[in-house]
Amino acid sequence: MFQIKNIGSLPRGQRNTICDVPGVKVGHVTLADGECQTGVTAITTHDGNAFELRTRAAAHVFNGFGKSVGLVQVEELGELETPILLTNTLSVGAVSEGLIEHTLAQTPDIDLMKATINPVVFECNDAFLNKISALKVRPHHVQTALGAVSQDFEQGAVGAGRGMSCFGLKGGIGSASRRLELGNAAYYLGAVVLSNMGRLPDFTLAGQHVGPQIEAKLETDESGPEKGSIIIILGTDMPLSERQLNRVARRACVGLARTGSFLGHGSGDIALAFTTADPVDTKSRKRTHSVEQIDERRIDRVFRAAAEATEEAIINSMLNAEQVTGRDGNTRFALREFGE
Amino acid sequence: MFQIKNIGSLPRGQRNTICDVPGVKVGHVTLADGECQTGVTAITTHDGNAFELRTRAAAHVFNGFGKSVGLVQVEELGELETPILLTNTLSVGAVSEGLIEHTLAQTPDIDLMKATINPVVFECNDAFLNKISALKVRPHHVQTALGAVSQDFEQGAVGAGRGMSCFGLKGGIGSASRRLELGNAAYYLGAVVLSNMGRLPDFTLAGQHVGPQIEAKLETDESGPEKGSIIIILGTDMPLSERQLNRVARRACVGLARTGSFLGHGSGDIALAFTTADPVDTKSRKRTHSVEQIDERRIDRVFRAAAEATEEAIINSMLNAEQVTGRDGNTRFALREFGE
Amino acid sequence: MFQIKNIGSLPRGQRNTICDVPGVKVGHVTLADGECQTGVTAITTHDGNAFELRTRAAAHVFNGFGKSVGLVQVEELGELETPILLTNTLSVGAVSEGLIEHTLAQTPDIDLMKATINPVVFECNDAFLNKISALKVRPHHVQTALGAVSQDFEQGAVGAGRGMSCFGLKGGIGSASRRLELGNAAYYLGAVVLSNMGRLPDFTLAGQHVGPQIEAKLETDESGPEKGSIIIILGTDMPLSERQLNRVARRACVGLARTGSFLGHGSGDIALAFTTADPVDTKSRKRTHSVEQIDERRIDRVFRAAAEATEEAIINSMLNAEQVTGRDGNTRFALREFGE
Amino acid sequence: MFQIKNIGSLPRGQRNTICDVPGVKVGHVTLADGECQTGVTAITTHDGNAFELRTRAAAHVFNGFGKSVGLVQVEELGELETPILLTNTLSVGAVSEGLIEHTLAQTPDIDLMKATINPVVFECNDAFLNKISALKVRPHHVQTALGAVSQDFEQGAVGAGRGMSCFGLKGGIGSASRRLELGNAAYYLGAVVLSNMGRLPDFTLAGQHVGPQIEAKLETDESGPEKGSIIIILGTDMPLSERQLNRVARRACVGLARTGSFLGHGSGDIALAFTTADPVDTKSRKRTHSVEQIDERRIDRVFRAAAEATEEAIINSMLNAEQVTGRDGNTRFALREFGE
Repeated sequence: MFQIKNIGSLPRGQRNTICDVPGVKVGHVTLADGECQTGVTAITTHDGNAFELRTRAAAHVFNGFGKSVGLVQVEELGELETPILLTNTLSVGAVSEGLIEHTLAQTPDIDLMKATINPVVFECNDAFLNKISALKVRPHHVQTALGAVSQDFEQGAVGAGRGMSCFGLKGGIGSASRRLELGNAAYYLGAVVLSNMGRLPDFTLAGQHVGPQIEAKLETDESGPEKGSIIIILGTDMPLSERQLNRVARRACVGLARTGSFLGHGSGDIALAFTTADPVDTKSRKRTHSVEQIDERRIDRVFRAAAEATEEAIINSMLNAEQVTGRDGNTRFALREFGE
Repeated sequence: MFQIKNIGSLPRGQRNTICDVPGVKVGHVTLADGECQTGVTAITTHDGNAFELRTRAAAHVFNGFGKSVGLVQVEELGELETPILLTNTLSVGAVSEGLIEHTLAQTPDIDLMKATINPVVFECNDAFLNKISALKVRPHHVQTALGAVSQDFEQGAVGAGRGMSCFGLKGGIGSASRRLELGNAAYYLGAVVLSNMGRLPDFTLAGQHVGPQIEAKLETDESGPEKGSIIIILGTDMPLSERQLNRVARRACVGLARTGSFLGHGSGDIALAFTTADPVDTKSRKRTHSVEQIDERRIDRVFRAAAEATEEAIINSMLNAEQVTGRDGNTRFALREFGE
Repeated sequence: MFQIKNIGSLPRGQRNTICDVPGVKVGHVTLADGECQTGVTAITTHDGNAFELRTRAAAHVFNGFGKSVGLVQVEELGELETPILLTNTLSVGAVSEGLIEHTLAQTPDIDLMKATINPVVFECNDAFLNKISALKVRPHHVQTALGAVSQDFEQGAVGAGRGMSCFGLKGGIGSASRRLELGNAAYYLGAVVLSNMGRLPDFTLAGQHVGPQIEAKLETDESGPEKGSIIIILGTDMPLSERQLNRVARRACVGLARTGSFLGHGSGDIALAFTTADPVDTKSRKRTHSVEQIDERRIDRVFRAAAEATEEAIINSMLNAEQVTGRDGNTRFALREFGE
Repeated sequence: MFQIKNIGSLPRGQRNTICDVPGVKVGHVTLADGECQTGVTAITTHDGNAFELRTRAAAHVFNGFGKSVGLVQVEELGELETPILLTNTLSVGAVSEGLIEHTLAQTPDIDLMKATINPVVFECNDAFLNKISALKVRPHHVQTALGAVSQDFEQGAVGAGRGMSCFGLKGGIGSASRRLELGNAAYYLGAVVLSNMGRLPDFTLAGQHVGPQIEAKLETDESGPEKGSIIIILGTDMPLSERQLNRVARRACVGLARTGSFLGHGSGDIALAFTTADPVDTKSRKRTHSVEQIDERRIDRVFRAAAEATEEAIINSMLNAEQVTGRDGNTRFALREFGE
């Protein structure tokens, strides 16, 4: 196995996943059958009704060659009103519909009030391993993924990550976390990524530029253009305003760049940051709300955590992934096969 | 009928619709049955394959309380790779999937090349007249709407506009155009709107603040908060860069404001501008492309046309709409009923 | 005189200026001598040290053909650390320097802490009446304008507004306010504008399209392209987050559009919104801060106030302006000369 | 000396500076006298009149804790109308004024046409070594820096870089370039940076995390928060639209992140990219212009060059800098003092 030295300088949380943030859970549904290698991953920010108790959030698009939905409203209102779902590029419509059905079923008031729902669904393109055009993900898979959420979740070639490729090897779902101190209080920031970008010659593992060595051992040529995408979800319980959350989301690119990506043209690179602090309670009748936020002069620790957790989550998505063979017999090798 | 004086100072095109722009067509599928009052509207920018011959475009979000999809990539790449579809808020997923199916069927290369598709789908919330939660729009309706595109198309309570409300009256699909001269050449800019915003007391008809008078004749109280949305699609054959198209899209709010809207909180107000000039030919193997664009010092005429055509298209969406009764027996009266 | 009907539906504040917002003051220095017709206007948000007690703010650029400074940091940090200064386009540098000198003199800690200062200076181009290239505004004028701030301030052809033109007539400084209720509490939103945009044929006065009539009485031809700029400063004591302030700033264009502007190419149209609620106290050692903000579902009243106050402030800038003759004998007539 | 392995995979240009791009020149004026350690650096994109022959450009703000001017208009119009100037934070006003004086002197038409000028001036905070509050940079220094531009220019502690610090060591001006091939044609992309950010423990030199070793040799503690700023100017002769230039500018953060920065709170991190291809000729009377741009599918090479040249330019700013002692006897050691 690869010996990974520490990435960065902040301590990890106990689980070293986004679930170190109290209340956050992740669940998958994995479709792995021949040329169908895909799935859905759900991230819930608390156990209640996501539409009624809204989580503050902000997003940043590093490279917009992507088809994610829901960002227009997140930018305007600074809140999530559904769980966050991840899937393959051509299944965003089906997953949106599933998320709408789930939310309508859970919240009859929406129909009564003639309100709408803003499904937040991110995607990467798994077409190398998955016959993406078969549109095998259906709306009901949303319910399955949501039913599976847990503080303990698998990483690697699972859920939406089933068919993803990263630096020419097997990528997918990865997570990591950092512990933050503010006075005597401890907070956590965690990242979960859907990794699907990068060229093997550029791959840098915790500061070691190992891509070329691995490439020398591979018989296939993986030196094509950077394609695919990466979705980076950052969660924290640190009190942050929507403006501050946007600043945090922007730091994800630091971790991404350090793995060897240069934000290639054909890659949809997007980060969303949320805080579980001070959610928006739509049942409240108060005319004004008090929102806690970190003193801006102390925010650097959160930025650093975002950079470190993102880099480590990408590495973890690869270290945890197994070899997968899918569509047309295409194979992605696992990073750990090269770690002797 | 209302006597509408000229809106603005530029001449109209012959059709006074977005179809004065050569090549542009619009088609509808309307679902009108009891509590189902909704539909789909398609706008095609040329008769060829939209994925292979891409139309330059840019969008601007005035108010992001909306669920439209495809804008992330339009902003990054400055091009459309599908027709533009309009529908109700909760049907964006189904219409996205229909647009993907249509594009895959038309373009087998996408699957072979492991490429993806960026469906562009806009929405407004028609829940007052339509049982939106019934999710009656299905993917196959996309094909029907695309099959119906024509240079002559209906306006008012049709297609995606079937269930929409505007200033407390019946809104929906409207269009208008302006003729632009540049040297000896004539160009056209047209708008098509999906109107679903505004409060009746604010309604201003071609400079006349008629909302209060109409309200006095209504027995119902329509003075609730501004809700809903407006989608404004601006098409032209004027040569414009993506940066210039963004500038044009931003002027749509001038026309919108003059009808009485103040971009209320609960309204997703979005404009997209496209030009049929110099499309991106993905079959070309040229290493660089030459893109024609108007001298910036002459662009004001395009801005003015965008403002005027938007205002008139909103008015036309109302003037052409018939009274509709839908869900729960809710009724929206037609503007023309008040014009003695 | 013109009989101005009410603009919009919300009540005015007592002064009907931005100074209805408690603590806000405005001051001018006017340079009016032959071909020099220009000046500086200062807006202070409270009587204390602006660098140490920072006012929350957000800005929006409608059209970026402008040279204002300070917006990059306002967008990132959501706060003002100096008063807001207005001047002519080529004097932004001199006024920035004056604002830095003022702030350094008032706050010796800045030098000790090796900190920096973000001067916020807006501008319009007064070159029609003012020999702008003479660079007559010097840094010391900042101190004079700041020394003159008062809750009672002149409007029209004064301060930075001295040489400005609006719809081919005399423009300059204008202000208006609206009273907002939230529960039993009263709040105010005020606008102050530096008006310098528009073409006379487009001019609409409180809903009356009077431009063409006025043009018929003028012997000169004022039908050139829309040039110049408008700066719109919105202040309130309503509790608003930076995200909400940005939403408020975006509504200023509604008022602007209703006066007849269509955001012409050659116009730098920018709005900045600030709230005096919950300022950022840099002397505080607290690790987190609690920021009050209005419930988003009640924000429409603030949007409406922004639109109405902006429209009325533009009208007031014209109604209060006297005729001015400056550079090359150029004259701008006063709106009130055409009123009866 | 440090043995620097290649940074990235693209070949360097012959000079390995931004001046490998034909026509681009850089000049400095350095003020180095006791507690005054500062200066001005000018970048010209061609030898003609910058106002009349405008260079296409786009900028991106990674972190907006900065006071640069000119970006609002660059974003709107996609062009530079002055040379690019760099200086210290509190001298932006003086340098703006100097740039206006220079442009007015060179272009009498501006005054005649009542046009304005958009000075583009970037800054970092050199207060550790320079008594920044003394405001020693005056408008006339702009003319001196512009008079000194050359294809051969010094790097390190010169010009605007005189007083800058980078990773707790001496930073300043650095440059690097990459050669790009497109068909049979060769193009260049060069970076010039004003480096003033980072914490020593994070410093990574061409992939080697050497910060901690250097810190062990230093007797002072340089582990404070990340402060300062970095300005990254990317120039190329590759044909690129303004939208593409914006995409290129966004890739500068990849190089920045790889040196160890995590875009700390107190840092104004901004990139501007320009192309010398197809400048905007304001003397042209043509109604439309044809702008050449690279086929988007081939743009990855430009992105990679931006990342690599930025990283190397930062390293070069440090390798070329000498030790400087300034204000209060503060000293920044040179990176090369630690090499062997």
